Amino acid sequence: MKVHVHVSLKPNVLDPQGRAIHHALEGLGFDGVNDVRAGKMIVLDVADDTSDATLDEMCRKLLANMVMENYRIEKAG
Amino acid sequence: MKVHVHVSLKPNVLDPQGRAIHHALEGLGFDGVNDVRAGKMIVLDVADDTSDATLDEMCRKLLANMVMENYRIEKAG
Repeated sequence: MKVHVHVSLKPNVLDPQGRAIHHALEGLGFDGVNDVRAGKMIVLDVADDTSDATLDEMCRKLLANMVMENYRIEKAG
Repeated sequence: MKVHVHVSLKPNVLDPQGRAIHHALEGLGFDGVNDVRAGKMIVLDVADDTSDATLDEMCRKLLANMVMENYRIEKAG
């Protein structure tokens, strides 16, 4: 089973990587960009019987830093 | 308009970050993990009239390294 975990910084946390991308896009002449936030996507290939609770635990223990990041789990089937 | 850009390594490219995550998950006692691939997610807040071609150009010029990465654009409305 493929599981996509999207990890993003909480909205009130400064995102220097996102700012750098924003700045670079403007430097390349792309107008109309209001904001850029950078995050991670982790694709797990796990056993089909892996429970939601286990996936949640993986995120909380390792994949996301719960102090400053949010995560979203999406099962890709 | 919010646009999510998912950037992932091409399947045949070695992914040391993914391997490290895989190893760490096993070290934490999570069984049944077959593979882990790490990627990036970039959330752009762009003007509503931004064309698909412009988004594509952003990805090709800056967000993804087309030699070793694939990207997928998902409009979040």
